[in-house]
Amino acid sequence: MWFNNNAASIDQSVLQQAESYQLTLTKPPGSLGKLEDIATSFSGFQGQIKPKLDNIFISIFAGDHGVANKGVSAFPQAVTAEMVKNFAAGGAAISVMARQLNANFEVVNTGTAFEVPAHENIVDVQIAPGTQDFSEQSAMTEAQLIQALANGQKAALRAKESNAHVFIGGEMGIGNTTSASAIAAAYLGLPAIKLVGPGTGLDEQKLPFKAAVIEQGLALHASRDPLHILQNLGGFEIVGLVGAYIQCAQQGTPVLVDGFISSAAALMAVAINASIRPWLMFSHESAEPGHQLILSKLDAAPLLNIGMRLGEGSGAAVAISLMQNAVLMHNQMATFEAAGVSEKD
Amino acid sequence: MWFNNNAASIDQSVLQQAESYQLTLTKPPGSLGKLEDIATSFSGFQGQIKPKLDNIFISIFAGDHGVANKGVSAFPQAVTAEMVKNFAAGGAAISVMARQLNANFEVVNTGTAFEVPAHENIVDVQIAPGTQDFSEQSAMTEAQLIQALANGQKAALRAKESNAHVFIGGEMGIGNTTSASAIAAAYLGLPAIKLVGPGTGLDEQKLPFKAAVIEQGLALHASRDPLHILQNLGGFEIVGLVGAYIQCAQQGTPVLVDGFISSAAALMAVAINASIRPWLMFSHESAEPGHQLILSKLDAAPLLNIGMRLGEGSGAAVAISLMQNAVLMHNQMATFEAAGVSEKD
Repeated sequence: MWFNNNAASIDQSVLQQAESYQLTLTKPPGSLGKLEDIATSFSGFQGQIKPKLDNIFISIFAGDHGVANKGVSAFPQAVTAEMVKNFAAGGAAISVMARQLNANFEVVNTGTAFEVPAHENIVDVQIAPGTQDFSEQSAMTEAQLIQALANGQKAALRAKESNAHVFIGGEMGIGNTTSASAIAAAYLGLPAIKLVGPGTGLDEQKLPFKAAVIEQGLALHASRDPLHILQNLGGFEIVGLVGAYIQCAQQGTPVLVDGFISSAAALMAVAINASIRPWLMFSHESAEPGHQLILSKLDAAPLLNIGMRLGEGSGAAVAISLMQNAVLMHNQMATFEAAGVSEKD
Repeated sequence: MWFNNNAASIDQSVLQQAESYQLTLTKPPGSLGKLEDIATSFSGFQGQIKPKLDNIFISIFAGDHGVANKGVSAFPQAVTAEMVKNFAAGGAAISVMARQLNANFEVVNTGTAFEVPAHENIVDVQIAPGTQDFSEQSAMTEAQLIQALANGQKAALRAKESNAHVFIGGEMGIGNTTSASAIAAAYLGLPAIKLVGPGTGLDEQKLPFKAAVIEQGLALHASRDPLHILQNLGGFEIVGLVGAYIQCAQQGTPVLVDGFISSAAALMAVAINASIRPWLMFSHESAEPGHQLILSKLDAAPLLNIGMRLGEGSGAAVAISLMQNAVLMHNQMATFEAAGVSEKD
């Protein structure tokens, strides 16, 4: 299948040249911290010592979850479709950020339980009006899994078409921290209680119930193969992110991963195709408690840790401005020689 | 003296209204983490529920240190004047960021050992060609201290004149991590070795020497009064920051503090005048190891921790874009009611 093909290669020679160039800039070596690595990473991605980071592509995958009917979320299921409309109309956090970044912005409706009217910013690729309840049966069929992966692949191809310098995938779906926690618990072999968090704001006293629903699903679905995990524990929107991440790496578009749910998708994408890992950057550590366990498995050290837990790609979008600063300083700072500044003794 | 006058008051009523308004926006309460507090802080600073954060004032204080002759820095003293020229010419990290932020940008030369030609971006208020070596005598006279504080006061007044929404103070001065470490060690009553770090890149094996030079100064200057500490252990540019921070708070301009040296100045400013503390925001935790000790005393939790240790105000400038994102989302997001999104169950 397409998702097994190797990722594009990173230009190691240009990456090293960019690292050498950075040592000539008027600052003590290393003094811009993580911003230095961000700038040179883009040099490697793009094969140019002075990279660009202007053209941002944001694709929000939305989908409903059968398991939401179990009462695992603080918000009613209608919110998924309502938020899709809010994304498209420009009122959500990610919509504000997309305008600010002058990004290409789309909402990919992979399947909502409530109807969403057509809108120019919405790509309607609905598979079903939500997944099945994974605590009682597989979230989706194998055919639906393949379709959900292809939804993501197509979003990545649209990003390539627009010459995006980076791809941000967001997600929206009432119940999707439950699905993401189940996926991570299954793959990492951890009890659900270690991964569940409040999501949109579930009372702490309901967390053991959320974990018990997940454990029911884990008991039902024994396979630890990543494709089986995705099919069984679902999320059309999560699988969309998996497909998008893999295709981005294959076509050479770097990905900026958002928070907990996006990282669960990244975990599955790397499990399916390990060659893609170098194309994934991580934007922030979510307040959702299970995130650190996923990041650790991916050997990922996100740029920000500012208590965000909204999803929608919002943490990644917020991090972009820092990354743009990193690239600007790399590209525009004077060298010691040009500025006539003395070097280290 | 002017620096003892009370800070302006923060509009607690508008701050609370802004916090209530934020709960009506289409996101789970608290899900934007620290960005929510940043937005509402500016509401309180400005007395309006939807604040502005467009007009940034950046003032870089430069000055030389007598103690640099002891060999406590990895770079020669000539670099202070050379970097002042580089700031003004647009080649330094902070120069790139100032352009990016469309900020008002000035370099305040408080006294360099090497000559700096006149330039429209440089405010020449030199007190002396650097301080005296604090390990052998007081860094400055009392008259110089008062002059150095006034240099900062005037920068803050220029920020007010330009209607700045926030003030960023930066610093440049070979040897100034030594001076800042000495100031913090004296005030916190800690051994110098707990506060010294590599600064611009001093070899780790030379840190005990750097600490010993500081201990010599601490033994010579017994007073723990903040004004005496500043006079004895110096830094014309550090004292300039102290004066600027105090005047900003008095006139109601919020301050975004940069890294280790700026935080040592903030520590002294609050020690001199505790009423100013609510006007100080903290941008990042520096890689300089002593920074956490200062932040802890100030009860400050910076926004970023990305391994920066450049100074120049660069960490604060980088953090501004995140803070602008925070304000934009606060101002532009739709409410649950306007967007027709269902609220929490």
